Amino acid sequence: MTYAKGHGTGNDFVILPDPDGLLPLTPRLVAALCDRRRGIGADGVLRVVRAGAHPEAVRYAGAAEWFMDYWNADGTYAEMCGNGVRVFARYLTEAGYAAGGELTIATRAGVVRAVVTADEVAAGLSKPRVYGQSVARVEGRRYDGAAVDVGNPHLVCRVAGTRELAGLDLSTSPEFSDADFPSGVNVEFSAPGVVAVPGAHAHVRMRVYERGSGETLSCGSGACAVAAVALADAGLSAGTVAVDVPGGRLTVVLDEETCWLAGPAVIVANGTVDTEALDVRLPGPDGSRPVGVAGAGAK
Amino acid sequence: MTYAKGHGTGNDFVILPDPDGLLPLTPRLVAALCDRRRGIGADGVLRVVRAGAHPEAVRYAGAAEWFMDYWNADGTYAEMCGNGVRVFARYLTEAGYAAGGELTIATRAGVVRAVVTADEVAAGLSKPRVYGQSVARVEGRRYDGAAVDVGNPHLVCRVAGTRELAGLDLSTSPEFSDADFPSGVNVEFSAPGVVAVPGAHAHVRMRVYERGSGETLSCGSGACAVAAVALADAGLSAGTVAVDVPGGRLTVVLDEETCWLAGPAVIVANGTVDTEALDVRLPGPDGSRPVGVAGAGAK
Repeated sequence: MTYAKGHGTGNDFVILPDPDGLLPLTPRLVAALCDRRRGIGADGVLRVVRAGAHPEAVRYAGAAEWFMDYWNADGTYAEMCGNGVRVFARYLTEAGYAAGGELTIATRAGVVRAVVTADEVAAGLSKPRVYGQSVARVEGRRYDGAAVDVGNPHLVCRVAGTRELAGLDLSTSPEFSDADFPSGVNVEFSAPGVVAVPGAHAHVRMRVYERGSGETLSCGSGACAVAAVALADAGLSAGTVAVDVPGGRLTVVLDEETCWLAGPAVIVANGTVDTEALDVRLPGPDGSRPVGVAGAGAK
Repeated sequence: MTYAKGHGTGNDFVILPDPDGLLPLTPRLVAALCDRRRGIGADGVLRVVRAGAHPEAVRYAGAAEWFMDYWNADGTYAEMCGNGVRVFARYLTEAGYAAGGELTIATRAGVVRAVVTADEVAAGLSKPRVYGQSVARVEGRRYDGAAVDVGNPHLVCRVAGTRELAGLDLSTSPEFSDADFPSGVNVEFSAPGVVAVPGAHAHVRMRVYERGSGETLSCGSGACAVAAVALADAGLSAGTVAVDVPGGRLTVVLDEETCWLAGPAVIVANGTVDTEALDVRLPGPDGSRPVGVAGAGAK
């Protein structure tokens, strides 16, 4: 099975080229591919299928040639992944499936636009909606935050400075209100950036504790949420925000209709994977495997 | 740059074929290759060089054709890695650099023997030396242990059963005596296995907290230490022990001279890596990177 490995600001993906939709991809195989020690290792899988060749995407075939069949590392589906779209678009151009510049990509959340340049890839996502207030607690300390809907739920908490941001213990989940977020929430902490970034209305640094994943190097929807709150705090409903995540810098441009998420997206490796050598037993619900299982190489 | 990815019971390696010793491998490049999100991701790098083509191995060229140039994920050297030797031997045979069966491999710790079969690879390592007693504490609870020298220091603590073993919180380092282990220690917890394994004098399950790494899926020298203690507890100085690590089953055979470490070792993927796309800045001493650094894809 042919694959590529790529990432956007540290959010990484196994990319499986499958133009005709023939790969027998299963939750077990996806989990085995994403296993960071016994497989390739990634946050998720991006299968590259022609929209016309996939039952979930055939209705988009007139608007987009390619369908991003996105799977989470645990073998479940997700509708959308902002960094995933950016890496997907980079792969399409590097592999010769698409020319650079502007292109359209079919996803489970509809057709999205992407703009590919040499240094960056931008993806056009839904606009975040800042709709309320809530509170998070870290080590007993209270942080006021804004509730934001980006298709998934976010709580953006403001922190005074980068030193306080760097000192936050995010090794366990921040506490939040179950009443406000009955399905859980991604919690971002945002501090003002220390330099003025040319062309940006605001510069912020953020860290994120992702629902179900823990602290990560980057979260595309989280960066969009943080940017929307930074603009709202400045009295703006549109503008450009430089968002530094632990894995690099993202630029979020909000206009009246779209949230553009831009930043580096690179393909690091290409190769073939021996699916016979993978460990295709599913991990436990907490990602653990039973102690004393048979050898990883056993078949 | 051509690479392969393989693992032995979840201890994983990036393998770089470089017969003539021409690759400009640096600590930064090794760390970037081993970065689990922005590189290939691994516990270490195994460079495959002809012994005669490497200044550290040329003296072994008469005894072994190939030198295992082993690097830790942080870009430092290590003398020996038991699972590394096993994966290295598997790679040599799969890549056609060596026939199966018995072979010799030059390492920084001297020439070691390996035996490659379809299901397993065994490596002949130095015999562990059980030399004293000490104590570890987990969540305030005391565990008596045996001090073992396997080239590196180990403390093997006995636990009553597999349930207690599974319940240990190894998310942080067990406490140990700085006086007994001034350079730190790898701490193993070992419980009796629940089934009799044919041909084995003992069956144990273990978990390990590795010095500098935290809990891992497998530790070859730790398995050897645990096996030596299990045999000593049974009044034996030689014999066979089945050791279940979280990543699979290892078999340790101690004779009068050698500690054979056997188990599955597989090559999962082969490919090419774009070193221009790697992030070759060194991580901080704690593995962290500064918050708000430039994009990972920036060059």
